[in-house]
Amino acid sequence: MQFEIMRDRLLDGLSDVIKAISHKVTTPILTGIKLEATEKGLTMTGSDSDITISTFIPLEEDGTQIIRMIQPGTLVLQAKVFNEIIRKLPTNEVMIELRDGMKTHIRSGQSEFHIIAQSADEYPILPDVKDAERFELPADLMKSIIRETVFAVSQQETRPVLTGVQWTMKEDELYCIATDSHRLARRIITPEVQASIPFNAVIPGKSLQELSKILPDHSNPVEIFIANQQVLFKLHNVLFYSRLLEGNYPDTSRLIPNEYKTSITVNGRNLLQAIDRASLLAREDRNNIVHFSTDGSSHIQISSNSPDVGNVEELVEAVQIEGEPLKISFSAKYMMDALKAIDGQDLMIHFTGSMRPFILKSIDSEAILQLILPVRTF
Amino acid sequence: MQFEIMRDRLLDGLSDVIKAISHKVTTPILTGIKLEATEKGLTMTGSDSDITISTFIPLEEDGTQIIRMIQPGTLVLQAKVFNEIIRKLPTNEVMIELRDGMKTHIRSGQSEFHIIAQSADEYPILPDVKDAERFELPADLMKSIIRETVFAVSQQETRPVLTGVQWTMKEDELYCIATDSHRLARRIITPEVQASIPFNAVIPGKSLQELSKILPDHSNPVEIFIANQQVLFKLHNVLFYSRLLEGNYPDTSRLIPNEYKTSITVNGRNLLQAIDRASLLAREDRNNIVHFSTDGSSHIQISSNSPDVGNVEELVEAVQIEGEPLKISFSAKYMMDALKAIDGQDLMIHFTGSMRPFILKSIDSEAILQLILPVRTF
Repeated sequence: MQFEIMRDRLLDGLSDVIKAISHKVTTPILTGIKLEATEKGLTMTGSDSDITISTFIPLEEDGTQIIRMIQPGTLVLQAKVFNEIIRKLPTNEVMIELRDGMKTHIRSGQSEFHIIAQSADEYPILPDVKDAERFELPADLMKSIIRETVFAVSQQETRPVLTGVQWTMKEDELYCIATDSHRLARRIITPEVQASIPFNAVIPGKSLQELSKILPDHSNPVEIFIANQQVLFKLHNVLFYSRLLEGNYPDTSRLIPNEYKTSITVNGRNLLQAIDRASLLAREDRNNIVHFSTDGSSHIQISSNSPDVGNVEELVEAVQIEGEPLKISFSAKYMMDALKAIDGQDLMIHFTGSMRPFILKSIDSEAILQLILPVRTF
Repeated sequence: MQFEIMRDRLLDGLSDVIKAISHKVTTPILTGIKLEATEKGLTMTGSDSDITISTFIPLEEDGTQIIRMIQPGTLVLQAKVFNEIIRKLPTNEVMIELRDGMKTHIRSGQSEFHIIAQSADEYPILPDVKDAERFELPADLMKSIIRETVFAVSQQETRPVLTGVQWTMKEDELYCIATDSHRLARRIITPEVQASIPFNAVIPGKSLQELSKILPDHSNPVEIFIANQQVLFKLHNVLFYSRLLEGNYPDTSRLIPNEYKTSITVNGRNLLQAIDRASLLAREDRNNIVHFSTDGSSHIQISSNSPDVGNVEELVEAVQIEGEPLKISFSAKYMMDALKAIDGQDLMIHFTGSMRPFILKSIDSEAILQLILPVRTF
């Protein structure tokens, strides 16, 4: 194997692939990146066995020569060392050459590295996504969907299926749902290109977080292939595979109330800042609980206290308050997460009593719903 | 106590004082910040007993009213909570009021905190710097001095005096020296305002690092008062006290060679980058050793190897190489620290053989000297 490549483009590709490399990997070959040099270009693959990322660099891009291919071949190089070497090389021209068995020479300017490679024979093949359901979403919309749901997945491994986000296609709508059983985030989307048949998959939250870092901010389509045990997100020149979580995702539809006793319209940013301040003292007690009440006036009262430190009272002017007066307590963190996910100006909060789950929605759209279970304190 | 204050200016002051607050403090009162409101303004003090920082906010600054003083008084508030509350308040006007015993009310817009204060009676008095030697240095020069020396202090508590930087005034010159017994950094300055008599003080490295964060980037003078057990750095509106380290600082003057067998002039940035690359493999072996040699040509060879990963060879073009050919090995980290401290373009390295300490100097100035002990490998 021998080729010359532009360092900056190689670094771009590496920055994607390296996101799949884990420090905790048990299979030694997975500490490496697989390089496949062909007459068409260079493919690099990294994996931690849950996530696999593969990126392709063509010989030429936009009329500029990126790679001069002298001899195709494949090998595996230690990911961390390879990435750092490339990052620190003195010039933009890099020659990579395998000779003398498994010794790989990396030359740039007056700098020459000789790195021991591993054989690509041991490297796992790419996951199988044959017979997958296929649909498309714009990249920036996918980024939003992830941001609006993934924070609500469970951080505990006691129910592994809850560490993922459930993606379900039914009646031409894609439902993305995450819950840790104390709160729930739901996003509904109508994809322009439909999957041929309904599907139901639970994608690990961690995979979606890594994917989000790679997704560009423009609206170019991402192709999504959902197979039996794997999902593939196909971007321009990048393939992102993730395993799917097994197990039955709970039926969350019954959780969501559709009758309300108190409905409040309020500016999301004002409410977020007031909860954030109240949580300064809530946090001191480590339970992170704030109290929320209405008294018939146009204000919401938010308060919290910590016996050792003191207490705080906030008034937030509501746009509208309908229904019964309310006293309720909840986790400041959950409320702040939900408010950040909605990220709009005005939003509605619907309550069904102080011990029942309540929901938050944008006033403009039904697409995002956040649900939070209260805590008994009043 | 009651006063109204501009939030942004209060935050500025807090950001200085909070640097003295430690999480590891054993005296509970030192988790707090002392507020002293007088007819002249507000003084805030924080301390971890090694470092004490005191900042003063006058009633008026540049013709703008900063504080409206209603009732002078003193109290101590939990540093972390107080700082976070002020940072998140909704408006720039903050009312701070002590009433009902030790309950402190912090009001801003529709937000009201009630925080339990502590009595200032328990708060330690400021360190005593009577009979101190006084001299001045420009703030930006002090920042440079700290940057050029403090990295070389010992990180180990086995010889506590080596965790500080020795400041010695002799023959109208200030010598600042740090050594961890494997390398040494020395900076010589001629202050414009002399101390009346010579002194010798060892300032904790940690204190200098914190001071450096507070020092402005302009050349306004900092007054320095060196007393028996304390040093005070007096900036505009800020007093920074540090205890001095006890114990005899070793006589380092004999360490510095003044006869050389090989002298090399080289571009510091090129050498730094080559060592940085070589250290990528050196680091893998955790000993962080690189090899440096000359062979009569105009190049320096730098190399390192890690049996598991591979090896690297770098050539650096020297400006001039005088004297005997040389093979020497040293810590890549120490060399990079020294090169960063000199921070110039061309520099000289003087060697006295492969097992003797070598020194680095700027070609423009004798003011900065860096010394490194080699490692036996060749």
